Order: sequence, then C-alpha cells, then structure tokens
Amino acid sequence: MRIQDLIEKKKQGFAHTREELKLLLDGAVNGTVPDYQLSAWLMAVCFRGLTDTEISEMTELMAHSGDMTDLRLLGNHTVDKHSTGGVGDKTTLILAPLVSSLGACVAKMSGRGLGFTGGTIDKLEAIPGFRTELSMKEFLGIVKTHGVCVAGQSGNLTPADKKLYALRDVTATVDSIPLIASSVMSKKLAAGAKSIVLDVKVGNGAFMKELAGAEALAEKMVSAGKAHGRNIRAVLTNMNVPLGCAVGNALEVKEAIEILSGKGPSDLKELTLVLGAQMLALSLGEDEKEAYARCKHALKDGSALRKFSEMIEAQGGDACCVRNPERLPLASTVYEISARKEGYLSRMDCALIGKTATLLGAGREKKGDPIDLSAGIVLAKKTGDFVCCGEPLAYLHTNRAEKLGEAETMYREALSFSDMPPEKEPLVYRLI
Amino acid sequence: MRIQDLIEKKKQGFAHTREELKLLLDGAVNGTVPDYQLSAWLMAVCFRGLTDTEISEMTELMAHSGDMTDLRLLGNHTVDKHSTGGVGDKTTLILAPLVSSLGACVAKMSGRGLGFTGGTIDKLEAIPGFRTELSMKEFLGIVKTHGVCVAGQSGNLTPADKKLYALRDVTATVDSIPLIASSVMSKKLAAGAKSIVLDVKVGNGAFMKELAGAEALAEKMVSAGKAHGRNIRAVLTNMNVPLGCAVGNALEVKEAIEILSGKGPSDLKELTLVLGAQMLALSLGEDEKEAYARCKHALKDGSALRKFSEMIEAQGGDACCVRNPERLPLASTVYEISARKEGYLSRMDCALIGKTATLLGAGREKKGDPIDLSAGIVLAKKTGDFVCCGEPLAYLHTNRAEKLGEAETMYREALSFSDMPPEKEPLVYRLI
Repeated sequence: MRIQDLIEKKKQGFAHTREELKLLLDGAVNGTVPDYQLSAWLMAVCFRGLTDTEISEMTELMAHSGDMTDLRLLGNHTVDKHSTGGVGDKTTLILAPLVSSLGACVAKMSGRGLGFTGGTIDKLEAIPGFRTELSMKEFLGIVKTHGVCVAGQSGNLTPADKKLYALRDVTATVDSIPLIASSVMSKKLAAGAKSIVLDVKVGNGAFMKELAGAEALAEKMVSAGKAHGRNIRAVLTNMNVPLGCAVGNALEVKEAIEILSGKGPSDLKELTLVLGAQMLALSLGEDEKEAYARCKHALKDGSALRKFSEMIEAQGGDACCVRNPERLPLASTVYEISARKEGYLSRMDCALIGKTATLLGAGREKKGDPIDLSAGIVLAKKTGDFVCCGEPLAYLHTNRAEKLGEAETMYREALSFSDMPPEKEPLVYRLI
Repeated sequence: MRIQDLIEKKKQGFAHTREELKLLLDGAVNGTVPDYQLSAWLMAVCFRGLTDTEISEMTELMAHSGDMTDLRLLGNHTVDKHSTGGVGDKTTLILAPLVSSLGACVAKMSGRGLGFTGGTIDKLEAIPGFRTELSMKEFLGIVKTHGVCVAGQSGNLTPADKKLYALRDVTATVDSIPLIASSVMSKKLAAGAKSIVLDVKVGNGAFMKELAGAEALAEKMVSAGKAHGRNIRAVLTNMNVPLGCAVGNALEVKEAIEILSGKGPSDLKELTLVLGAQMLALSLGEDEKEAYARCKHALKDGSALRKFSEMIEAQGGDACCVRNPERLPLASTVYEISARKEGYLSRMDCALIGKTATLLGAGREKKGDPIDLSAGIVLAKKTGDFVCCGEPLAYLHTNRAEKLGEAETMYREALSFSDMPPEKEPLVYRLI
C-alpha cells in the first residue's frame, strides 16, 4: 500500500489497521516515509481522529520503536506520574520523595520546559550539583537503593514519538486528543512503571482549555494504559491559576521544600495530597483515604523531606539546600509589581504568566535555548484575593533588568480585576 | 507570522489574507517554507476549503510566481480551452485548427498524460516530426503567422503551482475543489489567452464523479477567471463513457482527423461543435448558434482540416498523415475482444479503460515514464449499444503482446451488461 493511499484513507475518516500504522511509524523512524507525507497524515488525524484501537496500537508501536525500560526487577510497586503541563506545577519534586518515603518505588524520567511551561529536569538542576543525566544502570541502581530517582530520559526512548512530535510542533498538529494521548502514553509505557497517575490540567494555562476536552483526553489515555496492562488513573485539575506561588526553577524548588516541610501554599499542598494518595492507592493497593492521610503525615513529620535530601544526595546534589534554600541560585534583581487600584483579582492568564517568566529568563522559547535557573515570579496575590491599591501583586526575579519593563506590562496584562469576588473554582474536577 | 500559525489559522477554518498566501507561496517557490509545512497546510485546505477571494488571490499569486505569457501582441481574439481530463478526449487536436480556421487565435500550451488520462502533447507527438518543445519566440512566431500553435509549456510557468502539485500528488491532497480551481486557473492566467473555455468532465472517468462537485469546481474557476479580466465559460460534460472510440495517442490523432474530415463518432463531433461554438462566441463575440453552424461547416468543407495540415507543417510534422493516417505509428498487434453473451452494454468504467490503455503502453503511471504512441484501444461498442454474443467489443493495439491477457481481463471488468437498455445520459450537462 502506498503512503498516499494511507493518508487518503485517514482523510476519508477510515480507521487504519495495525499494519498500516506500523508502516507509517516504522517509516517515520527509519526515514522511508518523508516528512511531508507524515505531516499531511497528522493533519488528517487532527480532523478525523483515531479510534480507541488505533490509539492503543499507535501507543504500543511508538513505545516499542525504541528501548523499553524494564523495571520488573524493582518489583510491583513502581509508580509514575505525568502532568500534561501547566504553570507553577512543581508537584513531581514533592511527590517523588513523598510517595517513595511511604513505600512506592519511583523510577521517573522527566523532561525539560518548553514555551510557557516548565520542566522537572530544569527545576532539579537548580539544585547545585544535581545530576539528571544518568546511564540506565546508574538510574536503576539509585532506585534500587533509595526507592526514588528522577532523571532525564536515558537510552533511545520512543524515537517514533520524537519524530512525530517534532513535526507536530511546526505543522500546527499538536492539539489533537488522539495524538496527544498516544504520544504521552507511548512514553509512559516505555518508561516502564506498573502504575501511572496522570494529572490532566484544564484551563487557560493548560493545553486543554475546557473540561470536556480534558475529559476526552484523560479517557483516551487511561484506556490506552489499561489496554497495555498498567494500573492507571487520571486526575483532572484546575489550571486557571498558577499552582502555588512560585513560577521559575529555583523558586519552585524552594516552594517544593516548603511543602515537604509541612508548610507552603494550600492549593499546592492539597493537589500534592490528592495525587500522592492516588499514586499510593494504585501502586500499593491502599485505600485512598488512608493513603491521603499517610501522605499528610509524611509531610508533617519530615519523612518526605528526609527522602528528598536522600534523593538529592544520591543524584550528586547539594542536600544542604533543603535546610538552607538560599543556597539555590538567586537572581540579581527582585522587582515588586504593586496594584494600581483596589478590587478583586478575578482572573489570571496563566499562559501569559508563563511567558512573563520566560521573558525573565526562566523558560525557553525553543528547544535547546539556555535558561536562567534563578529567574521567575513569586505571586503575592492569586485569583479571588482582594487587593488594596499599592499592595504587592508579584515579585519578578531576574538577571535581565532590561526586560523588567516589558515583563511588568505583560504580567499586568495577565491579570483582570473586578468589584465582586469571582466564583470559586474547584482545584480538582474529577477522577477518571 | 510563523508558518505554523498560518497552518493553525486554516485548520481552524479562517481565511488567509493576501500577504499570508504570498508568504506561503513565495516560500514554496524559494524553499523557505519546508514541504512538511506546505503539505500540512494543503491537508487543512482539503478540510476547510478556501473562500472565493482566497482562490482568486492564490490563482493570481501562483500565476505570477513565474513567467507570464504576453499574448497582447496577438490581438484580442486569443482563446484557450482546458479540459479537466478524461478518457479519449482528443478535442484540443480538433478545436485548435477548427476555431483558428474561423478567425480565433489559438496560442495553446498543453500537457502530457498521467495516470489514466492522456495529454495533448503526447498525442501530437504521435505525428512524425511534430515538435512540441518550442522557445517562446518560436511559439509566438508560429501563432502570428498561422493563427494557431499547440506546444508544451515554454519558460518557467507557475512554479508555485508545480511545487504544490507535486506535493499534492503524494499527500492525498489532490481532490480539493479550491486547490484544483486555483491550480488550473493559475496556469490559464499565465498562459495569457484573453478568452478561456473550460471543459469540466463529470463521471467515472473524470476527477469529479458527481455533477454537484463539477458545478462547484466550474463556478470557482469561472469566478477566478472573471476576477482577473478573462472572458471565461465552463461546459460541464459527460465522462461516464470514453469520448469517441479511440483511446491512445496515434489512434486519437487518427480519430481527430476523421472529425476534421467531416466524419467520425457523433458524440465527439457534437462536443467539438459545442466547445468550438463557445470558443468563437467568447473570443470573437459571435452569436453561439451562428458559431456552432460555422464550426459545423468548417468541418464539412475541409477548411479546418487544411488548418490542421498547416499547423502540423508549421511545427515540423509530417502533414501527409492527414491524408494518410497509416503513416502514424502502428502497433504490432491488434487483438479483438468479443462479447461472451448478448445484452445491452449498460456501463463503462472509463478510469479502468484508461488504465487498460496504460497497461498496453499508451500511458504513464508516473511522470517521465516512456510511452508507446501506437498503443491503445478502439471501442467497437459503447454504453447503450446492444451486443450479440461473439460481436467485437473493442480492439487492443499494443507492442506488449505479453500484456494482452491482463489487459483483456481489465477491459472486460470495465464493462457491465444488462437486459434492458440503460437510461440515456446527456453529453453536455450545462454551461456556467
């Protein structure tokens, strides 16, 4: 069958056979299917979608297009957690040591930030000496000894997905639910954990702006995960407001340490507990309520924080940061943005706040750009807060003082005010 | 604006500005927009379409992407005719000398055959010595002296269309009405004639299978032509049956000579008169009925045939072929296919008949393939005819005797029989 016939088939809305998907994906990896045919096919998928069977097969074919991480030696309690990406989301930094301290096994591969969203690997690298590039052997060795390791991808994971993702990025074919679902799930299958908790973000700072789309995405991912024998659950969570108060790598590490110390912003703490409970419930078979309580206790009694120190040390980092967060990179300038009038902060445009952080140096516009680990934003007010004239709204941390004017304008644009308090939105919408 | 943003815009169903189309098309020609972005955009256009304004602007931008043929020196009576492609369609061979003999000026650039449809340039090359590759100067000189010349494209015509067409061919994005309309009309604008008659084929041997699609295509093309100051009309004609009886290059030249001699199959003659009348009406401002009668007369009195001889000589061909068609290339084998039972021939699959001719050597599967000018099919029975058992259905002409078995099977597959005569279909559906 010619590739143009496969494209035509999808264009007309028919489902592919496994062999057809294999032809396309093998061709994507070995270069026999040219990019212009792949991108036409991807666009056809954006309009026509993929059936659940196609998603499941595509997920498996992409997972097996490269190395499969074998975590079976680590037992049955391996657990992974994936966020579809938001602003200020540092939950992985907290959850990895937290659930590990409670008996789950966390062998987690994470990514770097791009666009307005941050990445766990960048955040961890804000800890002086912390090594994220580990060989597979080293990675598994650390998990075996300490029950936790968070590193960048090692080995040749999901090359078919990498190829398609790079093309999608430049052909406006990113926002297709079946393509996102198969991309995420192929990486999760290849990463090897038995249990997977997905944090599917919904809102103006997330890929999915509406609950319905996020639900559809979550259902596709959960179904693909189950089809391949994983314990999997998705939590739909609010991303109309940045999570916690810190946006930017070192600033987020500091806030994660606060939560691990039993302090910190309540929304971030609550989401941590919800996701942690799901991770324990799935990987250890615990009752959710009990798991929630155990997580809460581990944040309070310092055991999660101790595990974080242990993890940092195991990965070559300066564990003293945990007690002395001022050892983390600090920006040369901290600039206060204050309110020009009084009122309720009624809406925050998270994507624009993420872009402001990028402008300050905290993020990258394109893959490979250098970032400033000390840069970012600390929010002083969040949606629903009443603000008096002159009160601080946020603090911009940067080493690019010349960008402060532009960044302030952008940050102010991200905020809306009203005379009445805005309707309160839930932090967690539902489980799938 | 980034190209992915343009793709996204079309994907969401918005119309492009002229500047946006220019960015895409300039990028297609100079290589700054990579193929994978063009093909994703083309697929988005297949789903979302283009507005009339977009089609008109794209037509103009593609026309001006290369050389524009300037026919103004030839006066106001220049006329072009374009067929959207069918099986057995040799009308250009007849119409060019016919309308030229009656005072219109025909400076026509034609193409080669591909897939199951033939091309005028291939057909003309069946005449020994006939030259189709002319410089622009030579081409215009012949038209100036003889009032007619039919040649291949000279110069760098519509490179943007060439680029897009090559991509469309391998990305299943050919069958989009706005893309076809702008592709055809960009070539027509660049070819320079003041008046244009479009023969839009409808049926199983045409690109457009249904009347509604053909009407939509015709309307878009006529509207784009008018927007750029051309006299233009479209004729929707039947392609559920091959036109005339000959399919294949030399065989079609022979049949064209028959029509020019006042003989030949009635359907081919009638379509020639209808199209010829339109060409004269548009280019000379004549009354249609009068023009039809003048065309009929010119076929009868030999003046159109004389003009054909003159044109052949002017282009270096052996004009004796006109009186002695046996001088045209002859196939070594002529094989009769006869009926195995009696009944009405109720349906002919023209595309399959075209493919049979290709198998015999008359066509090319891909651009640049050599063809056998002598090969082809002569139909003995057409849709609606009653056939007795043992009567000839068709004659296969070929130099590939080893392919006859396969070709016979394919040809038989193309025919359906019934006990009752099929409903008679019109030859010409309507004018637009």
